[in-house]
Amino acid sequence: MKEQRPLILISNDDGYHAGGIKRLVEFVKDLGDILVCAPEGHRSGFSCAFTANSPLRLKERHNMGNDVRVYSCDGTPVDCVKLAIDQFCRDHQPDLIIGGINHGDNSTINNHYSGTMGVALEGCMKNIPSIAFSLCDHRSDADFLPLKDYIREITRRVLAEGLPKGVCLNVNFPLAPEFKGVKVCRMTYGRWIHEVKTCDHPRGGLYHWLVGEYYNDEPMAEDSDQWALNNGYVAITPTTIDVTAYDFMDKVRSWNL
Amino acid sequence: MKEQRPLILISNDDGYHAGGIKRLVEFVKDLGDILVCAPEGHRSGFSCAFTANSPLRLKERHNMGNDVRVYSCDGTPVDCVKLAIDQFCRDHQPDLIIGGINHGDNSTINNHYSGTMGVALEGCMKNIPSIAFSLCDHRSDADFLPLKDYIREITRRVLAEGLPKGVCLNVNFPLAPEFKGVKVCRMTYGRWIHEVKTCDHPRGGLYHWLVGEYYNDEPMAEDSDQWALNNGYVAITPTTIDVTAYDFMDKVRSWNL
Repeated sequence: MKEQRPLILISNDDGYHAGGIKRLVEFVKDLGDILVCAPEGHRSGFSCAFTANSPLRLKERHNMGNDVRVYSCDGTPVDCVKLAIDQFCRDHQPDLIIGGINHGDNSTINNHYSGTMGVALEGCMKNIPSIAFSLCDHRSDADFLPLKDYIREITRRVLAEGLPKGVCLNVNFPLAPEFKGVKVCRMTYGRWIHEVKTCDHPRGGLYHWLVGEYYNDEPMAEDSDQWALNNGYVAITPTTIDVTAYDFMDKVRSWNL
Repeated sequence: MKEQRPLILISNDDGYHAGGIKRLVEFVKDLGDILVCAPEGHRSGFSCAFTANSPLRLKERHNMGNDVRVYSCDGTPVDCVKLAIDQFCRDHQPDLIIGGINHGDNSTINNHYSGTMGVALEGCMKNIPSIAFSLCDHRSDADFLPLKDYIREITRRVLAEGLPKGVCLNVNFPLAPEFKGVKVCRMTYGRWIHEVKTCDHPRGGLYHWLVGEYYNDEPMAEDSDQWALNNGYVAITPTTIDVTAYDFMDKVRSWNL
């Protein structure tokens, strides 16, 4: 009996044509059968958004070689995962879902905004082991090669051992030619400041761009993912879909509402 | 010296014209100065998405009486919060941010998809006490009156006592003329199934709608928010922005990556 190779579903939030997703496919394609379903264009900052109010279409693409099935979707990263599973995985659910490689940092509270994390969280909500990979470099020609061995090893581990129900991995790489090692971290507390750039509209009134600077509330916290990245380590933040604030439940109960 | 009234920023994901946000403003407007900044139309399922790649505009509206400032924004719920704080709150940060009242259930994993929760999480990430209110009734003419006393009491409590850093409240109301009381709950594990309806496009090919049924993985769990709602209770799920899966960190460390 032929052993079935694992099925790895890959998506991202930079679009099916981005360098990061192509590199990811190259890095892991000998570890399983690859299915790519990714947005048609940029969907950065799309979080877990899905498309409730308009129809979606899929298009077959051929930009990653003859042995890789690639589809683009005109929706969000989460839409891509939902559609790919429904349309192409009826006989064999994915054994692993990967988002990335993102062009840009998804550590700290970016975990909440990231469409790459949307891919991993959507997989996790479907009880499929899921990982997001991101590199702290927004450039379209970012060099992903230093990530290769780490991505292959993490992917192999998760394929072999799985992940607990409700947990996925948010893996971020610093911008560096090589890394000092891996740190398993917690999410850093921080926030975005100076977030709006306002301009005069040539036809009257104002318009606004969302921009911003990241402010780290705890730059010295050596157990935080931002510290790991700032100090040259690969940061793995195990991430849960159970967002209950357990420590605060008794206090709310004491309000006797 | 005149005591300054608290500033309450209100947004939602159903649009500034929705019945739920109008009712919310009526219910709490004597508790503070109200500023509304909400999407121009439906943004259900927008999660924490923000608009990275296109400019945004604000319009003043006058649909909630002369004493309530109302703005609409052509972006997401999170965009509304970011823009309102930057444009209208420079001298006085909001003392409270409220999302809702949502037309529809945001308990369980809907916590992740909800634009109403996007409002509360965005406030929480800015260290402002934040609450999301939702009613398990999608209808545009849903009756919000049974929620009034609960919403006022929870709002008063949070204004008086604040919330811990990184914690907001996800409050869901069952569809019922009256409620059995309040349960402080954890998020229920469940998932969406049968999520895609596929149709033939009249000009060839297929198109897809995201639909789905909710499947509860743990219907008998009396500490879960879905159980509370199914049994007639108001469900308060304290929700954290720290999504670290602490229990799984040592295991990943043991991989010696």
